[in-house]
Amino acid sequence: MSSLEEIAMLLDNSGSILLSGHVFPDGDCLGSVAALGLALKKKGKEVVMASPGLIPGNFSFLPVIGDFCTEKPAREFFDVMIVLDCSESDRLGNFGRYLNQSANVICIDHHLEPNELGNLNYFDSDAAATGEIVFDLIGLLDVSIDPEIAACLYTAIVTDTGNFRYEKTTAATLRKGAILMEAGIDASGINTLLFEENPLSAVLLMGAAINSIKISPGGSVAWMVVDLSMLARYSAQDGDTDGLINVARTIKGVEISILFREIAPGTYKISFRSKHKADVSLLAAKFGGGGHARASGCTVIGELEEMEAKIIKEALLEVAKVGKE
Amino acid sequence: MSSLEEIAMLLDNSGSILLSGHVFPDGDCLGSVAALGLALKKKGKEVVMASPGLIPGNFSFLPVIGDFCTEKPAREFFDVMIVLDCSESDRLGNFGRYLNQSANVICIDHHLEPNELGNLNYFDSDAAATGEIVFDLIGLLDVSIDPEIAACLYTAIVTDTGNFRYEKTTAATLRKGAILMEAGIDASGINTLLFEENPLSAVLLMGAAINSIKISPGGSVAWMVVDLSMLARYSAQDGDTDGLINVARTIKGVEISILFREIAPGTYKISFRSKHKADVSLLAAKFGGGGHARASGCTVIGELEEMEAKIIKEALLEVAKVGKE
Repeated sequence: MSSLEEIAMLLDNSGSILLSGHVFPDGDCLGSVAALGLALKKKGKEVVMASPGLIPGNFSFLPVIGDFCTEKPAREFFDVMIVLDCSESDRLGNFGRYLNQSANVICIDHHLEPNELGNLNYFDSDAAATGEIVFDLIGLLDVSIDPEIAACLYTAIVTDTGNFRYEKTTAATLRKGAILMEAGIDASGINTLLFEENPLSAVLLMGAAINSIKISPGGSVAWMVVDLSMLARYSAQDGDTDGLINVARTIKGVEISILFREIAPGTYKISFRSKHKADVSLLAAKFGGGGHARASGCTVIGELEEMEAKIIKEALLEVAKVGKE
Repeated sequence: MSSLEEIAMLLDNSGSILLSGHVFPDGDCLGSVAALGLALKKKGKEVVMASPGLIPGNFSFLPVIGDFCTEKPAREFFDVMIVLDCSESDRLGNFGRYLNQSANVICIDHHLEPNELGNLNYFDSDAAATGEIVFDLIGLLDVSIDPEIAACLYTAIVTDTGNFRYEKTTAATLRKGAILMEAGIDASGINTLLFEENPLSAVLLMGAAINSIKISPGGSVAWMVVDLSMLARYSAQDGDTDGLINVARTIKGVEISILFREIAPGTYKISFRSKHKADVSLLAAKFGGGGHARASGCTVIGELEEMEAKIIKEALLEVAKVGKE
């Protein structure tokens, strides 16, 4: 693995730089790309900030988001390509090919089990967000954190930590948040834009999904169903089902929450979340899917009731392994 | 107004100390009472920590919560009574009478327009939580922040700031959070207990409340009704309605959200929240209530439909003042 100092030095000595996050972009990848892109621009570099996936509307407030490249950059070859918040070439969409069209590739990520995608790689799975690593890198680049950069880094950190709530948040994460606030951002305004501008359809769909909650006899597995008729009733958009599964997980005693979302007649995208200990990546794998220990998913075709029975049975086995039911 | 130094000096020179929060206790008042109570105990004081209202189950993890006095303390007279997170005698329930049975009364609060309830008062409406003021006071008392005190202060701060999200959160608030984490608390564990251990009844009630959402024609005011029949249907407990009002506020375009909660036949506790600019303390004041600019409430007796019409009309006027509808 390379050090952040080596990465900063390479960037200092490079002219044209392509920065990319991953498909299905989130606040951490967009905020990290925007913050580092802005910092490199301040150093006079020729910068292309890329997003291989469509940028969700709630990030439209981010500085420079309008300059993001989602199709094809103006140049074919770069001195450096930086991949942020991801280490898999197949999550780079269109931009994957620039891995071979850049003299150097830098990969910075905080996910578990990263791939050495770059010739310089910096991985820290203890970082609460890629934005935390980018914060440190910008310091090494000797760029001061202005309000625009701060807004991007703040977005990266609060989206990936659930507002400083999740397990990997440390005292250092909070101190970084303090420095970003001191740079002059409207933090509560950013939080409102990120978390309090849900479409009415999404909120009403949440009500309907809650009505569908079922719980295993011992209370350790909770599941919800969102079928095509519900999506139609609320004219729900893509993205309106994000976060629904967390509602079921917040129920006292629930260790695994499951969302069955019908994406085509008889085809269900199934998401799994665990609260404390159960490894839902194993659960998803049994049905041809995958993911992380606390968040995973799979897609299954079939009759809902039969599918539910099979999956709940397997979920209860996963819970039993960690002694919760 | 007194200084925190004067308050610390009085506490240093006192023997028996009664600490009380307010009725319908929340994380800030319970965490503040528990943290300051623990600090004073460490200084050898005779301490009674009181809660005039029943303590919601999700706070049962707080250190010393089992020692809280909810009925009648063992002694009749105190050297000092400290009122925390409240400055109204009628919000002290049973414990209001100790205002006259204490040689000194200290009042510490962060709400707007406080009453000078004590002979020593410290008010800071810029503080994000009373727990922030107590954090500083404990420093002046020269008590080190151990993990127990830290867990109480962390709870006070995260519950009143929505995890460092709301407007009054400053860089200093985040730095206090960092110091509390460094004291050795399990912050993500506390967050799980606070926010991810909701009774099933509370989650189902949320679904029903979402079903009741109504929106003003321009979309700037959203309101929900939770009546006694709904509370009965889900065997809802006190506390199960906490947070419901925030769901309505997260709808895109909503500036004021309102929850009508029936607490006795024909008697409604009405809560108001605003998103950006509207001052809902003015709105609550029109109906005999009060609170903050972003969060306020009142209690009204009457017929629901008539009450709704009146209150929504006034809410729209408040929104109009800030140019949102």
